[in-house]
Amino acid sequence: MNSAVLSRQEGAVRILSLNNPAKRNALSVQLYSELSAALVDAQSDAVVGAIVLTGSGDFFCSGGDLGQLALRRAMAPAQRRARLNGLHDLIRAIRHCAKPVIAAVEGGAVGAGMSIMLACDMLVVARDAFFSVAYAKVGLTPDGGATAFLAEFVSRQVLSELCLTGERISSERLHALGAVNRLVEKDAALQEALVLAARIAAGPTRANARIKALCWNAFGADAAAQMELEAQFMVESQGDDEAAEGIGAFLAKRPADFVALRSKPHAP
Amino acid sequence: MNSAVLSRQEGAVRILSLNNPAKRNALSVQLYSELSAALVDAQSDAVVGAIVLTGSGDFFCSGGDLGQLALRRAMAPAQRRARLNGLHDLIRAIRHCAKPVIAAVEGGAVGAGMSIMLACDMLVVARDAFFSVAYAKVGLTPDGGATAFLAEFVSRQVLSELCLTGERISSERLHALGAVNRLVEKDAALQEALVLAARIAAGPTRANARIKALCWNAFGADAAAQMELEAQFMVESQGDDEAAEGIGAFLAKRPADFVALRSKPHAP
Amino acid sequence: MNSAVLSRQEGAVRILSLNNPAKRNALSVQLYSELSAALVDAQSDAVVGAIVLTGSGDFFCSGGDLGQLALRRAMAPAQRRARLNGLHDLIRAIRHCAKPVIAAVEGGAVGAGMSIMLACDMLVVARDAFFSVAYAKVGLTPDGGATAFLAEFVSRQVLSELCLTGERISSERLHALGAVNRLVEKDAALQEALVLAARIAAGPTRANARIKALCWNAFGADAAAQMELEAQFMVESQGDDEAAEGIGAFLAKRPADFVALRSKPHAP
Repeated sequence: MNSAVLSRQEGAVRILSLNNPAKRNALSVQLYSELSAALVDAQSDAVVGAIVLTGSGDFFCSGGDLGQLALRRAMAPAQRRARLNGLHDLIRAIRHCAKPVIAAVEGGAVGAGMSIMLACDMLVVARDAFFSVAYAKVGLTPDGGATAFLAEFVSRQVLSELCLTGERISSERLHALGAVNRLVEKDAALQEALVLAARIAAGPTRANARIKALCWNAFGADAAAQMELEAQFMVESQGDDEAAEGIGAFLAKRPADFVALRSKPHAP
Repeated sequence: MNSAVLSRQEGAVRILSLNNPAKRNALSVQLYSELSAALVDAQSDAVVGAIVLTGSGDFFCSGGDLGQLALRRAMAPAQRRARLNGLHDLIRAIRHCAKPVIAAVEGGAVGAGMSIMLACDMLVVARDAFFSVAYAKVGLTPDGGATAFLAEFVSRQVLSELCLTGERISSERLHALGAVNRLVEKDAALQEALVLAARIAAGPTRANARIKALCWNAFGADAAAQMELEAQFMVESQGDDEAAEGIGAFLAKRPADFVALRSKPHAP
Repeated sequence: MNSAVLSRQEGAVRILSLNNPAKRNALSVQLYSELSAALVDAQSDAVVGAIVLTGSGDFFCSGGDLGQLALRRAMAPAQRRARLNGLHDLIRAIRHCAKPVIAAVEGGAVGAGMSIMLACDMLVVARDAFFSVAYAKVGLTPDGGATAFLAEFVSRQVLSELCLTGERISSERLHALGAVNRLVEKDAALQEALVLAARIAAGPTRANARIKALCWNAFGADAAAQMELEAQFMVESQGDDEAAEGIGAFLAKRPADFVALRSKPHAP
C-alpha cells in the first residue's frame, strides 16, 4: 500500500504532502491516521520549527470519497460516528500540534478538504484555487470544524450562504474575507509557504507553541479568560531561555539565535 | 384590524411582508405575534423550502414606535420586560425556524428593525438603503440582539461607534463590513431575494435546517463544542434519504431531486 | 518624580496623555497605577462624557521596557505574575470605566502598547503609524489582551501570522482589518479624536455606559446571553431620565439635551 502522506524535511521545515493525486487527494481512513502520526512525529523532532501541509499533484484536497460516504447509510449511527471521529481526530491533531502548520494550497480544497485547510494556522493560496463547503449539494452537513473555522472570520450571513448553497469560493474572495495570509501565482504556493515557514521556524519554538495555543483559544473564550491564559503563558515565557536570548540579543543590538536553544531542555 | 404581516407563496418560497407602510412598518405587539406565528406556519408547511422577509412599501422597518416607547417609563420594570419579550420572542422565532429566512431590504432598517434584519440568515439589500443602531440618540440602549449580531462581523471598535453614535450606515458600508449577501439596485431586493431563496428551497430541507442551526451555534461556541454538533448532525445526515438522493445523483452524474423527498417522513 | 500620565479637560472630554516621550511612553509600574487612577477619576466626574487616551510626543506607546523585562527571569513565577497583573489591572480599568475611551494614536503602538490601544473603545490613528505584536521577536508571548482583542476582528490565520512573526502592521492594514474608526493625516489624531469624543460626550452618559458594557460583553457571549443583557439594560434605560429627554425631544422635533441631566441622580 502506498503512503497516504509523504514527508520530507527542508531545513527546519517539515513538509507533509497528501499523496493520492489521482483522486485529488480524497480523504481516507489511512490518510487520517498517517497524517495524524506525521504531525506527532514532526512535533517531537526538535529540529522542526514549522510544518507545511500540501497536496501532491495540482490539487490540495477534494474532501470525502462519496463512494465511501454512500456506504455510511447502512451503518449504525455509532459506526458512522466512529468513522467521522477519524477526521475530527486529525483536526484535533493539527490544533494540538505544538508546531505551526501552514497550508500550501494549489487547485482547491473542497468539503472536508476545506475543513482541514482551515484548521491550519496559516494559509498560502494560489490565485486560481477554489473552495467549497460542498456538503449541502449532496444532502450532507459540514464537518471537520468547517463551520467553526469559517465563523472565526465571516458573518453569519456569509457563513449561511456558503454552507446552504455550497457555492464555489474563489481564492480572491477567501482572501478578501480575511483567511488567506499569502495569495500567490499558480504553482507558487509551496515555495511561498516554505519562505513563511522558514521565517517562523527560525523563531522561538516554545514561545511559538504558546502563541499557537493562544490563537486557537482566543476564538470562543471571553476576554477575561483569554487574558488569564496570556498571563500564565507570559510567566512561563519570561523564565524561558528563549526570552533570555531574545531580550539579550535586542539589548545587545544583535540578531537573536533561537535555533541553538532547540536541543536544550526548557529551563524555567 | 388589518394584518400586520402579509403572507404569500411563490413556488417553494414563503414571502412574509411587514404591513404598515404608512409608519414605515414600525413595530407593534401585533406584528411580533403575527410574524412569529407566520414563521411557525411556514416551518410546518412541507412545501416551503425558504422564507423571504420584506417590508410593504419602500422601507423595511423603522423599529419601535417612539410614542409607544414613551409610555414604558410609567410601567413597572417587569411590565417593560414583558413588552420587550415580544421582540425577543420574535428574534428567537427567526433563529429557531427550521427554514432559512432571507431579508429583502428596500429603504432601510432602523433600531429594532435593524435587529430583526440582522437576525435573518441572509440579507439582500438595495443600494440606497440605510441602517442605524439608533437607540442612543433617544437615550435608549440596543435590543433585539443588535449587539450580538453586529459583533458576529464587526470589530468592538466599530460596534462601539455604531452603537454610541447611532450614525447612519450606508448599504455599501454594511456590505463592506461583510453582512450583505447581495447588494442590488433600488427596487430589486425582493426579486433577487426570491432567486436566492428558490435556489436554497430546491436543496435538502432537513440538511438545510441542520446547517442553519450550525451557523447560529458557531458564534459563541468554541471549536470543540461546534465540532461535536457538526458530528452529531453529520451522523443524522448520513442516514437521511436526502443524502442517499444527493450522493446517488452525484455518482450517477444526474441532478439531485430533493423536492420529491419533502413529503416523505425522515428515515434515519 | 514626574507624572507618568498628564490629565486635562476640554469641554466634556478628559484627555489623558502617557508622559514619557523620551522612551516613547514605555510602560512602567508607575504608569499602570497612575493611568488606572486617572480613569477612575474621570469616571467619577459627572462633567466627563468621554475620555481620549494619547501619547506625549510623537508616539503612542512602545510597550514594555525590555531592560525591566530582562529582570523578570530571576524572579519567582508568582512575582512575575504580580508585575504582569499591573498591566492586566489597567486593561480591566479601561474595560470597566463607564465612560468610552478613545485612543488617539500618532507614531505607533507596539507590544503591550498595542494591547492598551486595542483595549480602547474606539481608535483614531494617524496614517503613518505602525503596530506590532512584537513579543515573539524577543522570545515572549502576547499579554494585555492582545490576542483577545485582535481575535475580535481578524481571522485565526491572520492572528497567527501577526503573533508568530511580530511583523509590522501599517495603519492602512489595521484599518482594512476593521479596527480603526478614523484614519487621519499625521499629527491630526488628537484633534479628530476630540471631535468624536465631544460628539459622544454630548450623548446620554448612562445609556453610553450600558452600551459600552454591551459592546464588551458581545464578544465571547452567545446570542442568547447577549440578548438577556440587552433586555436588562433596556428595562433600565426605559426608566431613565435620559430616555424621557431623548424620546421627548424626538417627538417634539427638538434636539435632545442630555448634558443637563448629568448632575441629576439617576431616577429609574
